[in-house]
Amino acid sequence: MASKMASCIFCKIIKGDIPCFKLFESDKTLAFLDINPLSRGHALVIPKTHGEKLTDIPDDSLAELLPVAKKLAAASGAAEYNILQNNGRGAHQEVDHVHFHMIPKPNPQEGLGISWPQQKPDMDKLKALAEEIKAKM
Amino acid sequence: MASKMASCIFCKIIKGDIPCFKLFESDKTLAFLDINPLSRGHALVIPKTHGEKLTDIPDDSLAELLPVAKKLAAASGAAEYNILQNNGRGAHQEVDHVHFHMIPKPNPQEGLGISWPQQKPDMDKLKALAEEIKAKM
Repeated sequence: MASKMASCIFCKIIKGDIPCFKLFESDKTLAFLDINPLSRGHALVIPKTHGEKLTDIPDDSLAELLPVAKKLAAASGAAEYNILQNNGRGAHQEVDHVHFHMIPKPNPQEGLGISWPQQKPDMDKLKALAEEIKAKM
Repeated sequence: MASKMASCIFCKIIKGDIPCFKLFESDKTLAFLDINPLSRGHALVIPKTHGEKLTDIPDDSLAELLPVAKKLAAASGAAEYNILQNNGRGAHQEVDHVHFHMIPKPNPQEGLGISWPQQKPDMDKLKALAEEIKAKM
């Protein structure tokens, strides 16, 4: 973990070794503009605790992230926006330190592009799956 | 607000008037399977407080959502997954009660499809924008 943190670009931003366009900072959380935005106001909220995926972050470091994302959304003035957090290369994660995107969606061309390959529901399978997942919660 | 809540499908699920494949429930939060999943294990986490967009939900109702999404991700067994919350029709929101999707991404075909129309960064504009947003936080 220590070596991963040493090379983590977001940990370097937290330490101040790399500059950022800072929007918010507290003991546990940092927010800054994405420098490769999908739309005007595209910002990131990160826990200061290093962790690659959501499951790696302690609950007390997660609790403040959405209240800060909410503040960013309001301050950006965006009427429509997406909150997105990607886990794993296959799921479009590019920096291995948990980060939440707040991406204004001003029009169909700018902001996050989403495709939604919806599957046919099978109620019996869903019921069995719910029991399976619930047992592991 | 009262009339919007009366017709809200997620408020009806919370009240028990419409069934769901429940995965987790607390005083403030409910989680259940999406019945039109993008992948196996696709689940929703919602605050019991009715609100259309992230900015409509009080901070104390937001704090538990990510810890629950984290539990769902772990319990689903997904190695890769996306956390997504959409605000507004243009941003792909279909039910007007804040909900976070936890969508496993098992392969390129299933799960959330993302396109990323990245803009060229203009550091001077980003600097000015950061000042503007920070002043409104």
